[in-house]
Amino acid sequence: MATGRLVEVYLDLLSQPCRAVHILLTCTKIPHRVRTMALRKGEHRTLDFTKLNPMQKVPVMVDDGFVLTESDAILKYLATKYDVPEHWYPRQPERRARVDEYTAWHHTNTRPMGFCDGSAPARLNRALSDLDDTLDKLESMFLRRQPFLCGDDITVADLLAACELTQPLGGGRDVLKERPQLQRWRSRVQSAVGEAFDKAHGVLYALRDRRRARL
Amino acid sequence: MATGRLVEVYLDLLSQPCRAVHILLTCTKIPHRVRTMALRKGEHRTLDFTKLNPMQKVPVMVDDGFVLTESDAILKYLATKYDVPEHWYPRQPERRARVDEYTAWHHTNTRPMGFCDGSAPARLNRALSDLDDTLDKLESMFLRRQPFLCGDDITVADLLAACELTQPLGGGRDVLKERPQLQRWRSRVQSAVGEAFDKAHGVLYALRDRRRARL
Repeated sequence: MATGRLVEVYLDLLSQPCRAVHILLTCTKIPHRVRTMALRKGEHRTLDFTKLNPMQKVPVMVDDGFVLTESDAILKYLATKYDVPEHWYPRQPERRARVDEYTAWHHTNTRPMGFCDGSAPARLNRALSDLDDTLDKLESMFLRRQPFLCGDDITVADLLAACELTQPLGGGRDVLKERPQLQRWRSRVQSAVGEAFDKAHGVLYALRDRRRARL
Repeated sequence: MATGRLVEVYLDLLSQPCRAVHILLTCTKIPHRVRTMALRKGEHRTLDFTKLNPMQKVPVMVDDGFVLTESDAILKYLATKYDVPEHWYPRQPERRARVDEYTAWHHTNTRPMGFCDGSAPARLNRALSDLDDTLDKLESMFLRRQPFLCGDDITVADLLAACELTQPLGGGRDVLKERPQLQRWRSRVQSAVGEAFDKAHGVLYALRDRRRARL
């Protein structure tokens, strides 16, 4: 890696997968530059951004000219390409497979749940009805016999899940309120990543606080 | 790997991700045993199977006691653990990231499309309305400058996508009918895997043929 080279990431920190990427970059100290994108202002639909990612979605990563989309792929690429502690994405096939298993499951289970943020009523209703089922599975399957989703240590899977489950806070809803087991897991994730968690969630917390002030 | 050891897979070949796993196993000649599951008969809800996979879903892989779910994870595990040609899941970080990028996208784009099989009206309508958009993206983004979804050679991503896009055939619908670019890609996938394709699709073809005979 050339000295002084920076990984560039296009992120809107109000987007849950963007926060997961931000946390990994911050707490592993991968040299990077954040290009802030405001989805609410439609910045992902500009001509320049569309050239970069025709899907018009964030996050996008650019590493020495290599453009990559999809948070799942970005997190795994960063953990593979850069010299970060191996626990983030273990090399041992069985342990790695556990992370791949969770992330695959995440897309159609935990991920849609993040829409419980109150911004889209149709999505909200569907999301709430699936919420309990997903939380049950996180507790009874993934966290049944281990402190983190894929084993004894934190992986990129925990980042994706934690950022998703925090999203509804923006709309004033703590979906883990009556879920002590998941709360303890979230605390473990927060301890493991330190300041990086609050740093990534600053914008979301501000949204929650403004909402509270209005009530 | 101990001599005589077999990878066990629980598959219903009417399920698109199960077929992808079946094709990889067959054409890479990984020693395996298929445990046939009939979802239509509720065999995934039996006590024994639920013990194996509390999610009650197929495919499930058991490799020397290691139980793994999620087709995406199973395919990547098999390609990593066994001595198969590297093109299936390249080791080079950028090329591997392209596969991870597609598979992440697949879950919320190509995958729901497979429900155009006519078996569930509510799902069918939603799926058909998203179909054109997904097919457009497959053509204009993933296949724009390359013969396979993630580069010059076939990967596990192509298997997942091809099996999904073939699914509606069971209900008599060829979703690639007016898509010559995607048809050519499908032919390339079929050529690359040889007999393994038709072998995995035998049950689906039989369903299509019985349907035709009734019309």
